[in-house]
Amino acid sequence: MTRAETPEFSFTLHATDGAARLGTVNTLHGAIRTPAFMPVGTVGTVKGLYLDQVEDTGADIILGNTYHLMLRPGAEEVAKLGGLHKFIGWKRPILTDSGGFQIMSLSKIRKITEQAATFQSHIDGRKHELSPERAMEIQRLLGSDIQMQLDQCLEYPHTEKDAEKAMQLSLRWADRSRKAFGSQPGRGNFGIVQGGINERLRRTSAEGLKSIGFEGYAIGGLAVGEGQALMLQAIEFTEPHLPKDRPRYLMGVGTPEDILESVARGIDMFDCVLPTRSGRHGQAFTRFGKINLRNAKHATDTRPLDPESPCPALSCYSRAYLHHLMRSGELLGMMLLSWANIAYYQSLMQGIRQSIAEGRFEAFRAETKEQWKRGDVPA
Amino acid sequence: MTRAETPEFSFTLHATDGAARLGTVNTLHGAIRTPAFMPVGTVGTVKGLYLDQVEDTGADIILGNTYHLMLRPGAEEVAKLGGLHKFIGWKRPILTDSGGFQIMSLSKIRKITEQAATFQSHIDGRKHELSPERAMEIQRLLGSDIQMQLDQCLEYPHTEKDAEKAMQLSLRWADRSRKAFGSQPGRGNFGIVQGGINERLRRTSAEGLKSIGFEGYAIGGLAVGEGQALMLQAIEFTEPHLPKDRPRYLMGVGTPEDILESVARGIDMFDCVLPTRSGRHGQAFTRFGKINLRNAKHATDTRPLDPESPCPALSCYSRAYLHHLMRSGELLGMMLLSWANIAYYQSLMQGIRQSIAEGRFEAFRAETKEQWKRGDVPA
Repeated sequence: MTRAETPEFSFTLHATDGAARLGTVNTLHGAIRTPAFMPVGTVGTVKGLYLDQVEDTGADIILGNTYHLMLRPGAEEVAKLGGLHKFIGWKRPILTDSGGFQIMSLSKIRKITEQAATFQSHIDGRKHELSPERAMEIQRLLGSDIQMQLDQCLEYPHTEKDAEKAMQLSLRWADRSRKAFGSQPGRGNFGIVQGGINERLRRTSAEGLKSIGFEGYAIGGLAVGEGQALMLQAIEFTEPHLPKDRPRYLMGVGTPEDILESVARGIDMFDCVLPTRSGRHGQAFTRFGKINLRNAKHATDTRPLDPESPCPALSCYSRAYLHHLMRSGELLGMMLLSWANIAYYQSLMQGIRQSIAEGRFEAFRAETKEQWKRGDVPA
Repeated sequence: MTRAETPEFSFTLHATDGAARLGTVNTLHGAIRTPAFMPVGTVGTVKGLYLDQVEDTGADIILGNTYHLMLRPGAEEVAKLGGLHKFIGWKRPILTDSGGFQIMSLSKIRKITEQAATFQSHIDGRKHELSPERAMEIQRLLGSDIQMQLDQCLEYPHTEKDAEKAMQLSLRWADRSRKAFGSQPGRGNFGIVQGGINERLRRTSAEGLKSIGFEGYAIGGLAVGEGQALMLQAIEFTEPHLPKDRPRYLMGVGTPEDILESVARGIDMFDCVLPTRSGRHGQAFTRFGKINLRNAKHATDTRPLDPESPCPALSCYSRAYLHHLMRSGELLGMMLLSWANIAYYQSLMQGIRQSIAEGRFEAFRAETKEQWKRGDVPA
């Protein structure tokens, strides 16, 4: 691709409806319609799905993970194999997380200094160092379209002092990440707002990141145990400090309701392991709310999860069969429910986008929540 | 379907090449091209594959299992849900094994009397009884196209006396099974030749079954630890006693080489868990022989398993990626290798059928074995 043909990384805001926003992020590997849900492909696979299926559900972008991929197969190894897109067979955009969250949640022994995070691999116990510069280098080697700064994540609860310290360090790491990112046509670098559930800290973080300047802004450190009410509050007091002309990404969120409520508060992008993880454990997210397929009442139910869905996993398999597969511990049960959940999430995003375009997001939000509550009619 | 439209269960022998046979089995749910490999769908799913994929590999028929399905979800339950075809979403023929083998291999406490087998479920320890009549009733409730008699299987090694006793009991059960099967247009009932690796016993069993009369004849009790040489010998001395105008099914076999050698000895039908089970453990069966994807040498190999295969699992994913998925314990690795193996098995069967049709089976057999030995060219 010659320089003239390389698309600029850009964000276009098409419409707003209240705080909800309809937009497009353009990247080297194509467009991302926002609000967007990004299926998580931690180690280079959206667990239990073929990437064709992921694409067919309407996903424009998937996630990869710096922490996991640096440990196995290794960033240089992926680069030698032609980059992450080629390695896994995905032609659309990829966002890679920086590894900050996984260092907190997965590695056993970790030490955070001004220079870098040092941690033990959860796979083989070997010691690794990850600096802001190395995190960016890894993401460049992977060839991801949206590259996240390295940040320090905290578990909840934590003290305000710890939150401030981690936020300030993340801000200094943001600056180093930005410099390390350099200029990569068609690719974007996102800063991550930290500061726990403290308004002052979140504002300081957001202002600091804006003065560095990023292609997009993420809100990190939420959905770590604080509960939905505090999470939404944190979004509310953070959002006004984010630039309107850049995409906002709420990291690691969440349930369909979390997403709906966060879109209502101005969020553009989401990722979460919930649809695939829940699917592997027998739980389906549908138009009719959550359905636990392991429940005995589904054993004789010949209805599919949602007869009106274009996704075969939702419309072509009976609940009785899904129940049988889950009770029998069969791979196909996990495959079908992971697929069904990703499909439902994407149809929810499509519904959100359409309702914003038509200026009826509030009505859509109310109807959707009402339908979840109403549930499905008994068999 | 009116009676006039119901196809008769039939077997047509189109050609022979040495002892190898090319034929078609016709059933209520369509034709089965023989020699046929039947993917195993023990509990109503070919592990790790969508049934569309199974069909696309060229499989005409899959297996279900009486033992597993009677325990979960239950034969009457499947019947209420519209039968096994509808329950799992497979429109082509299904063969159901009778459960004899699983009672031997899976259940803990078992008692075999003249009347029936009594055993404990491997799932919850509950006691169950399976008589020849009940085994047929279950298979009728499942709605399978080819229904196997209940037999008594023995582990290897065993004494000749035990083999004779089990064979004679299986013969008496064959008679009861046949009566219980009754008349089911478009469906077939297969007897099972037992008798271990003893020529006299196998002959007695085959003659006894022939005088009862079945739509097809299986050879049971092989591939239970006796080794390939003894297995092939047992096929050789059993085959002359099987009627030429009925399909012969070698139960639970085997490796690609076992299949090739057994076709050369007059076998028409096969089933085995090997392609899916091996796939879940990282082993691929290919034109180039067995490939263990967990082996470190594949980590940097960008070649697919077989660039010339029409199956995406064989031709569209690099060995490096498959290696990474298996090392990471990812579902997609198991899915892809199970799919690749079923696809290879079906392409082998297609090659076998075509070579018999063209009168060059011996050459095909030699070339295929030669290619397995030669392996793939190093990367």
